[in-house]
Order: sequence, then structure tokens, then C-alpha cells
Amino acid sequence: MAKIGVVGAGYWGPNLIRNFQAHKSCTELWVCDKDAGRLGRARERFPGVKTTDSYDELLKSGVDGVVVATNVGTHYALASKALEAGKHVFVEKPLAASVEQARGLVEQAERAKKTLMVGHTFEYSPPVSKIRDLIHSGELGRIFFISSMRVNLGLHQKDVSVIWDLAPHDFSILFSWLGERPTSVTATGKGFVQKGIADVAFISMVFPSDCIAHVEVSWLAPSKLRRTAVVGDKKMLVYDDMEAIEKVKIYDRGVDFKDPETFGEFQLSYRTGDILSPKIDGAEPLGLETLDFIKAVDEGRKPRADGRAGLKVVEALAAAQKSLEQGGAPVRLD
Amino acid sequence: MAKIGVVGAGYWGPNLIRNFQAHKSCTELWVCDKDAGRLGRARERFPGVKTTDSYDELLKSGVDGVVVATNVGTHYALASKALEAGKHVFVEKPLAASVEQARGLVEQAERAKKTLMVGHTFEYSPPVSKIRDLIHSGELGRIFFISSMRVNLGLHQKDVSVIWDLAPHDFSILFSWLGERPTSVTATGKGFVQKGIADVAFISMVFPSDCIAHVEVSWLAPSKLRRTAVVGDKKMLVYDDMEAIEKVKIYDRGVDFKDPETFGEFQLSYRTGDILSPKIDGAEPLGLETLDFIKAVDEGRKPRADGRAGLKVVEALAAAQKSLEQGGAPVRLD
Amino acid sequence: MAKIGVVGAGYWGPNLIRNFQAHKSCTELWVCDKDAGRLGRARERFPGVKTTDSYDELLKSGVDGVVVATNVGTHYALASKALEAGKHVFVEKPLAASVEQARGLVEQAERAKKTLMVGHTFEYSPPVSKIRDLIHSGELGRIFFISSMRVNLGLHQKDVSVIWDLAPHDFSILFSWLGERPTSVTATGKGFVQKGIADVAFISMVFPSDCIAHVEVSWLAPSKLRRTAVVGDKKMLVYDDMEAIEKVKIYDRGVDFKDPETFGEFQLSYRTGDILSPKIDGAEPLGLETLDFIKAVDEGRKPRADGRAGLKVVEALAAAQKSLEQGGAPVRLD
Amino acid sequence: MAKIGVVGAGYWGPNLIRNFQAHKSCTELWVCDKDAGRLGRARERFPGVKTTDSYDELLKSGVDGVVVATNVGTHYALASKALEAGKHVFVEKPLAASVEQARGLVEQAERAKKTLMVGHTFEYSPPVSKIRDLIHSGELGRIFFISSMRVNLGLHQKDVSVIWDLAPHDFSILFSWLGERPTSVTATGKGFVQKGIADVAFISMVFPSDCIAHVEVSWLAPSKLRRTAVVGDKKMLVYDDMEAIEKVKIYDRGVDFKDPETFGEFQLSYRTGDILSPKIDGAEPLGLETLDFIKAVDEGRKPRADGRAGLKVVEALAAAQKSLEQGGAPVRLD
Repeated sequence: MAKIGVVGAGYWGPNLIRNFQAHKSCTELWVCDKDAGRLGRARERFPGVKTTDSYDELLKSGVDGVVVATNVGTHYALASKALEAGKHVFVEKPLAASVEQARGLVEQAERAKKTLMVGHTFEYSPPVSKIRDLIHSGELGRIFFISSMRVNLGLHQKDVSVIWDLAPHDFSILFSWLGERPTSVTATGKGFVQKGIADVAFISMVFPSDCIAHVEVSWLAPSKLRRTAVVGDKKMLVYDDMEAIEKVKIYDRGVDFKDPETFGEFQLSYRTGDILSPKIDGAEPLGLETLDFIKAVDEGRKPRADGRAGLKVVEALAAAQKSLEQGGAPVRLD
Repeated sequence: MAKIGVVGAGYWGPNLIRNFQAHKSCTELWVCDKDAGRLGRARERFPGVKTTDSYDELLKSGVDGVVVATNVGTHYALASKALEAGKHVFVEKPLAASVEQARGLVEQAERAKKTLMVGHTFEYSPPVSKIRDLIHSGELGRIFFISSMRVNLGLHQKDVSVIWDLAPHDFSILFSWLGERPTSVTATGKGFVQKGIADVAFISMVFPSDCIAHVEVSWLAPSKLRRTAVVGDKKMLVYDDMEAIEKVKIYDRGVDFKDPETFGEFQLSYRTGDILSPKIDGAEPLGLETLDFIKAVDEGRKPRADGRAGLKVVEALAAAQKSLEQGGAPVRLD
Repeated sequence: MAKIGVVGAGYWGPNLIRNFQAHKSCTELWVCDKDAGRLGRARERFPGVKTTDSYDELLKSGVDGVVVATNVGTHYALASKALEAGKHVFVEKPLAASVEQARGLVEQAERAKKTLMVGHTFEYSPPVSKIRDLIHSGELGRIFFISSMRVNLGLHQKDVSVIWDLAPHDFSILFSWLGERPTSVTATGKGFVQKGIADVAFISMVFPSDCIAHVEVSWLAPSKLRRTAVVGDKKMLVYDDMEAIEKVKIYDRGVDFKDPETFGEFQLSYRTGDILSPKIDGAEPLGLETLDFIKAVDEGRKPRADGRAGLKVVEALAAAQKSLEQGGAPVRLD
Repeated sequence: MAKIGVVGAGYWGPNLIRNFQAHKSCTELWVCDKDAGRLGRARERFPGVKTTDSYDELLKSGVDGVVVATNVGTHYALASKALEAGKHVFVEKPLAASVEQARGLVEQAERAKKTLMVGHTFEYSPPVSKIRDLIHSGELGRIFFISSMRVNLGLHQKDVSVIWDLAPHDFSILFSWLGERPTSVTATGKGFVQKGIADVAFISMVFPSDCIAHVEVSWLAPSKLRRTAVVGDKKMLVYDDMEAIEKVKIYDRGVDFKDPETFGEFQLSYRTGDILSPKIDGAEPLGLETLDFIKAVDEGRKPRADGRAGLKVVEALAAAQKSLEQGGAPVRLD
């Protein structure tokens, strides 16, 4: 059981409100927004929610958890204030607008012993969970590399680059699959439509395990692609989120080594087997995510994507942005 | 009319021999290979060709043009000797194993006033030609960026990386489309199957026109992809060489600017129109390419892909390889 | 301006209610259902609607138009009573459970000079409208044949066969495209899951213009297909409703005749040209359909799919069902 | 070991010649054609074959088996003469131009105790064999129905309808999968390009096991489709011969019955599981087929597709053609 307050009823907030309202364990739901029109529409669409245009009032209202669904520039101030007020906090992705702010929130939450959760929604997506299980179980073997595309003719943001807008999805997915974060990031990209705000970026990453990854993000592409290839030494898979049914395909393919028979020689053979598209559960990621926050608040259990996960993504975003601005020079992460 | 000699009857040579033999304007065709078995199979499969296991004999045989279809490591020596002997020369891609060698050949050919042509076969591919026409006619507008993939579970080379094996295709296509070569190249990749021989690489390039390009090449991918997206400010297109029929799709899509009505504001609108898959001529690229060499020899006309084009590709390959070996640091091309 | 009453708030009714409520020209909206639970859910989801469990009360309420969204078995009685009460009537597809009932409604409406409209929703679907325009404009030339599939692992109906459940969509689309109805219908099918209730049917039709058509409908198919090919003597097209973007593709393909040069000879040549996927408007068919009813009520204008159209579909459904039950013997329509 | 003579070196014959020549167990290969030009081209392309323009000479030449690859109108006379001469005979599909002729050949071969084989090449196709194994092993359960399409903008035949041209493929595949032949056939179709020669046909069949099947064949379709769905009560599958890799997909889907708990009620539940695309062997069907004939000749073993199989297909073709000409009336097969 938890009382939840959502700050920000703009573009994304209503999706969160709808999902919290659907959970019986959310016993009270507040919506806070400075804009009277948005508050009015929220009351109309979600009868039963309580509304306020004052964040202070929200914090005094007795809610257990605060959900920050505002512009990324305001994440730090709102989340920090909520932690200060003794609330558990869920912050939409990316966690904060800079590494310093993200780290500040993580440390504040740890000191306060409160849950800090970040809205890495894709980590709750059934195909992403399925692939995480496949990787962690060892079925794909050692992961060699991952190549991901998230592109289409999409809405340009005015304040953040396509890296900060779209790459949090891929970064959070990749880091959760691999259980590690990159040691080095390079990015090439440019702002074609708006000077200085990159609308396409090609990001490469090197991981401690020797795995490498590439992420292409763009607001300027002819057709919508959401495609990720994962190549392991035992099997390979493709996750295509645009497919209606066969979102995940596991290829029983690979290269087999044979020990050299004579000195200096090596032999490779290629293996091609069945292709399996496993049945994927149809649950809505946002439903699972909001429930995870309620349980974190209620039972004190660690959410799937906590502040540390959010910080790692922000560090990688900042590194990619820095590399892009430096003409593609590798940026190391400690 | 031209007498042609092909050196190298291994994996690729027979394709060239078959095409030269089919041209009536190729009045005499020699095949040269040190391996007696290969020569025998060539005589059997191509009745009428003359064969020799001596390169010197070939050069003395009276052929007008020599076609070098041997391992890249031998390109320089063989091509140089042919130029010295007063022959026109066609060299398979990549032109040579190093920038120095490639430059040497170009300069030697220019001094000798002989044709030096490089086997950038894809420049003769009908869909690639169609797209070149579309770009050069301005139909796509200014080109913002190009993103290309050439991946599958493919045969590992033992002596060169996937960059030198597969990227010549994409580089020659891109440079011919854009009419320029990159000023800076970065590459991330790794050799997973054979230590030290990269089997996957993610290559980014920046061009003088401000266009950027990305090329992913891999011998380790679950499914075969040959897909290139070209994004212009008027239209966008996708070239998918795996499609049987609709290899090229032109999307009448883009972002339109409006002049800001009030200071500091800008307005973007998104345009979505028809998608056109133009009929593409079905000619075999290798037929067009070999004919181009015969005409270059016979009429002295410049082939589509000359030595300078080959040199530019080799320079970019070397830069990509160097960047990869330096952990992704940008390498500048002068 | 019109006051509308919807009868039946079960599976489909709420979609109609939502759309009528969204039209400002629908000044009053009633919902009638015998089931108290459904009425309650309707009030909750659509604040502002008036509800009643009495059809008599609805007819006395002052509504101008009545929308019948109940089981097909009840269509006739409810629609007839509404016409008797002087209402304009919209009946969900199929218009009625038998040819006699359908004809009865059409004649009653004509005598009463009231609108009788049938819910052939697909006739309002933008791709279907686009194709109707293409056919009627002559762009495809004379239509040779149409082949349509509407199959997937779908919900079995307990009271009507897959013909009565799914074929109304294809029949209404085809008849509106061709501007004619078939003279003869044959159907082969069987009830595999429920004895006596066909769950797959293959239906062929011959039209007065010499055009033929085939419709495959099934509740038992491995993957969802909604695909229609239209073959004309000038061009051909494919309408694939499962495609997200390229729902309609127009193929500039065909066979050209040449006049025989010598007696008894004929010559055919095959033409292959561009493929065009026109931009299709994204309007919701149900929005257009409900607005069409309001305008029919308000302005007395003829709706796109009137009672006569509904009768023709019912006649063809009955003929197909009869043919199926007679082992595929052709059934003539006068 | 067998000596083989191929009659007919026109469109299809060379494919057979090439395959027989590749088998070492074919110790002598004759080609017979009345046309001197074709014989010359055969000698050029297949060095080593013996040629003759006299069928009598071929029959006297000592060949063990005769392969009839001429127009269907000549199948009977040539095959009958070969059987009379004591040869084993392979006849291209369809076995003969009429049921009477086909039956005559079957009976003659049985009297003569010679192999009569028919060129149902698709029965040797690896995906077709894979599906036959799946069906015969019971993995799909009881087969409810099969729906097949074989359409594209294809070459019009001048003497036979699209039924006789294309349906032999589907009929031979279906009958071999099901192990039975239909009891009733209906067909609707028309000749649009050439009056009287149907270029599109929709054919339905009912089988003794209660299975039904539908085959759409056409020379007039916008895009090439080779797609067959097989629906069983345990699993379903799709065979798409246009797919490069995933030609067969097995869907673990179906409808489960539950015994009615109370009288008159039934309950259905829908099952959706994994999708598996099994690895399919890449062997060339024609290679397997020609080898099967050599073994039949050499070892006297029954070929996969014998004269009886050919007769069943011809009976079904004749029934379909008759139904089409009678406006779709069902034609019974005894």
C-alpha cells in the first residue's frame, strides 16, 4: 500500500498517472502541476485523483512516494527536495541533467535511506527481460558485441540532443543486460535541423569484459527502426521492437574453433541451426514499473532500476555528448 | 577491341574471366596463375582462353590490359610491373595494401599515361547508380548523413580485418555518391574470433560538406543485412540490397523550417508523403565494370572508378584501421 | 446537430459511444442496455451520457437517430421498431440475420423516408477509400480480379459462422470498389473446432463485369493476414492492413497486347515499372462513420453505406453460407 | 549405374541434363531433340553428351531410362513408346494431357514391370520434405486445412491454363503431405489476357479425412507469392518459399477444447507459444529427383513420385479444369 504523488502532468505524466491509478495498492494518488489547464484535464481524465499546483503542498500531503515527470532540467531540484522531505522518489529518465546532479541524488538517497528509482521503462519490457534472462543464463555464451538502432523521423527536442533524448533507453537496456558499464565512449553526430542540438549520433562503447556496443540514435530517419542485435559466442539474437509478434529471434549460429592440427594453422567452421522466436509475455512495461515503485515504497525492496543505475546511464550520456562535441575523441569513464 | 589478361584464377578471378569472355570487344583473353590446377579448371570452364603460369609471358603476350585479381598483398608488385610493361591495368579492390603503395600506383600510371582502374564493382550496381543520380540531381536535397550496414555470419579472412574486406564496398559507394572523401575517421571494433583481426567494426566519418556517415561491417552477425539509409533535407531513401524487388525506396519525408515569427522562437513541421520504389535496371554490375575497362583500354576514356578513387578508399581504410587500433581516436585525412 | 441513442453497450458499442461523444454535433447521447453492469460501466467511462435499460424509453426520449449495436439476431426487431417510431437508424454489420429481414428493413425505411445506414466501417477506412478512388478514376484500368485474405487465430463465435462474422468486411469493401454485386457465389469451408459452425471458408464470386473475386476468411490461421490484391489491366495493387506504413502499394505492372502481325498469332509483353506507396490519411474510420450518420440524420443526406448496400452484403453472405452447406455448389444471385 | 536419355532440350530439359551429368552413376547421357539448334547448344554446354534427332535411334541406343521433357501434349506418345521399348520412364509433370492418357501409361508400366516416374520436383524440395515429416510424425496433429498461393506476373502459356501449368506443384505437394487425394474439387477462374485460357484460378478441394485445401494460382499478380499455410489441431505452420532463410515457421498455436462442464456449454481456450524456424537442408531438388530416377532404374526401387502419384494429380487437374469450365460446380473424384 502506498500513497503516490506525480509531479508533472504534461506529455508523459498522464501515462504514469493512468498506471498508478490502476494499481489497487496505490491507495491515494496526487497530481501536481503548475499549469491549471493540465491539472483540470488530469481531474477530468482520472476522476478520483487529488490535485495541487503547489509542490510544497504535495510534499506535506502525506504521500509516501513522489514521482518526478517533469523536464530533465528540474529533476535534481524536485527530487532532492522530496528526499529532504523524507519521501521515496521515482525520477523519469534520465535521472538528472548532469553527472554531478545524478551523483548528488544517489548520495542523498543513500544517506536518507530512501528509495531512489529511475524510470528506465524498457528494463521492464517483456522482450528486454527475456533477453536479460537469456544472457544471464549463459545461453548466448560470452557476449561479443551488441549493435542497436533507435531511429525515425521523430520529434526534435529543443533543449537536449538526441543522445539525451533517446540513448537512455539503449544505455539502460545494455547496462542491465551486460551487468557492467562502459570504460570508454566515442560518439559522432551533428545537429542538422537545429544548430548545436545533435539530431543524429553514432555511439560506440567498450566494456570491461571486452564486449563492445554501438548505438545509433536519430530523429531524422526515413523509417522507424528499433532493432538490436546481440552476438554471443554460442548464439546470436535479434530484438526488433517494431515486429508485432516475433520481437525476439534467437539464432543458433556461430563460429566454431578447432584446435590447429599443425603449427600456425587454425580452422574455423560455421554453424547454422534453427531460429526460435520465443513467446513473449504481453505485459505493459509501465504497469510493471509503477508497481515496482509501489513495492519499493511499501516493502522497502530495491527496484529493478535504482539511482545507481540511473547514475551510470547519466555518466555514459555525458561521456557520449562530450565525445561528440570533441569530434569523436574517446572519453574514458572511471 | 582489346586483348585482356587476367592474373589470378582463384576465388574471384573466374567471375571476371566469365564477363570478359562474354564481351565481343574482348578479342583475346589470357588467364595467368601459378597454380596448374586452377589453370586447368579455367581452360575447362572457359574454352578458348589462353593460359600461362608465367606473369612475364603474359606481359609479353601482346595483351592491352591486365586485370589483377590476386591477394591484396600482391596488388602493388603485379600492377606496377604491368604499368612498366606499358599495359593498362585493372586492380581488384582494394587497390593496394597501403596508402604508399596505392599512391605509388596512381603516380606511376599518370606518368605512364595508362589507365589505372580499381574494381569498385558496386559503383556499377544499378541501385547504386540510381541513387547517385538521385543525389547528384539534387532530388534528395543537401545530404545530412548516411548510415550503412554490411553484416552477416561471413567467412573470416585470415590476413586482413573486416574493415579491409568489407568496407571498400561502402567507402567506394559513399565517396562516389557524395563526390568527396572524409576529413576524419573513427572506428571501434575488435577481433573476437581471431585475436588481432577485427571481425566487427563501427566506423564514423565526417565530410567537408558537413555530411557524416557511419558504416557497420561484421563477419559475425545473426542475419545478413545490406542496408543503407541516405537522409537529405528534401527527401530520404533506403537502399536494401537484400530486397528482391524494392531495393530502393524514396521517402518524401522531412523536416520543414519556418522562419521564427517572434524573436527566439523557431518552428519545425514534419512532412510525410508518398514512398516510391523506382524500377531498377537488372544489369550485372560485373558486366558493366569489365566493359568499362575494355572501353578505357580501347578508347582511352576514363573509367568510372580510377586509381584516384581507389587511393581515396585505401586512405580511408587505413585511417579506419588506425583509429580502431588506437581505441577509437579520430584520424584526420588531409 | 443530432441526438443519438446507442443500443447495446457490450463488446462493440463502447467504440461507437466514444466516437459519438467526441462529435460536437452530437448534442445528446443515450446508451441503452438491459444489463445494469454494462450501463454502469458506460456511465463511468463516458460521463455525460444518459442511460436507460428500456428500449421503449429510449425511443420516447427524443433521440433523432438510433444505433443498433446488439447481436445480429436482434437487429431486425430493434431497427424495425425504431423506424416505426420515426427514427433514423444505424445498424451494425451485418444489417440483419437473413435476406428477408434485411429486405424488410430497407423497404420499411424507404416507406418511412428515414435513413437506414449499415455499419460497414471499412468503407470509411482511409486505405479502402484511397483504393476506391483509384479504381473509380480508372487508374488501374478494367479490374480483372480481386483476392482477399482475412485470417488469424481469432475468437470463435458461437452462433454464426466465420462467413457471417468476417466476410461482411470484405464483401462491403469489394462491392463498394466494384460498384456491383456478384451474380454467383461458391464457398467451401468447414467447422473444425465447433461442429456445424464453419471456422474457415474459401469464397469465390463472379461479377456482371466479368471480374471475379476470392475471399478467404478464417478463425484458425497461424498468423494474422489482412491482405487484398486488386489486379487491373493497367495497374495492380496490394492493400495490406497489417503494414504500419505502406498499407497500399500500386504496381505499375501488367501485360500488354500487341495486335497479331500475322493471322493466328498473338504477342504478349510484360511491363514492370515503379512501385508507389501513396501517403494515406490517418483518420479513424469509426470517427468518419459516426459523423456520416450524424450528417445523414441532421441534413438528410445519404450515408456512404445505406440499407441497400447492407442488403447486398447480406444476400451475398446468405449465398456463400448456402453454397458451403451444399458442398460448394454455385448459388446464383438475381 | 544407368544410361539415361533425355528427350526435349528446350526450356526445361537442360536443367535435367545438367543434373544427370553431375551424377557419377549416370554412365552415359543422351539428348534427343528434333531441333538441330537445340542439339548443338546442348553439345556445347554439356560436352560429353551424345545427341540424336531421332527418337527411334535413342530407344535403340541402349539407354536404360528415358526422360520425357517435351510439351505435355506429347508426353503420352513418347512415354508409351519408351515403355514399349522396354525402358524405364521419367515424365515431366503433369504426367499426361488427360486422365485417360495418364491411366494408360500407369497400366502399361505396370504390365511391363518398368518404372514410371513423374517429375513432381517439389516433392524433393527440402522444405516440402521437412513439412511432410512434420505432418507424418503427427507433430501438427490432425490436419484441418491447407491454404496455398502460387502467383506472380508470370509467363502466359499458350496451350494450357494456369491450372495445368502451376497447380501440379501444389497438388503433388498436398497429396504427398496428406497421403490422400480429394473426393471433390471446385474451381473458379477466368482467362483475362487470352480468351479461354484461364490465367487465374481459385481451387478448393475436400479430402476423405475431412481436411480441406485451397490453391490460388495466377499468372497475373502484382508480387510473387509462394505461400502455404498448414493448420493442424496441435500446431500450425507457414511455408514461404520466397523467404531466403526462414522458409518454414512452426507456430505452437491452437485452440484447446475443454469438456463442457454443464450440458450444452463448451469452452475454448487459445494457446500461443513459440515460433520455430527449423534449419532446412539446402540440397537442390532436381539433383535429388534425378538421382531418385537413376536409383529406380538401377536398383528397381520405387521412386518418391511414381506414375500413380502422377495420375492422381492429373485427375485433380482435370476435375479443377472441368469445374472452372462449368462455372464452379463441384466435380467428384471416385
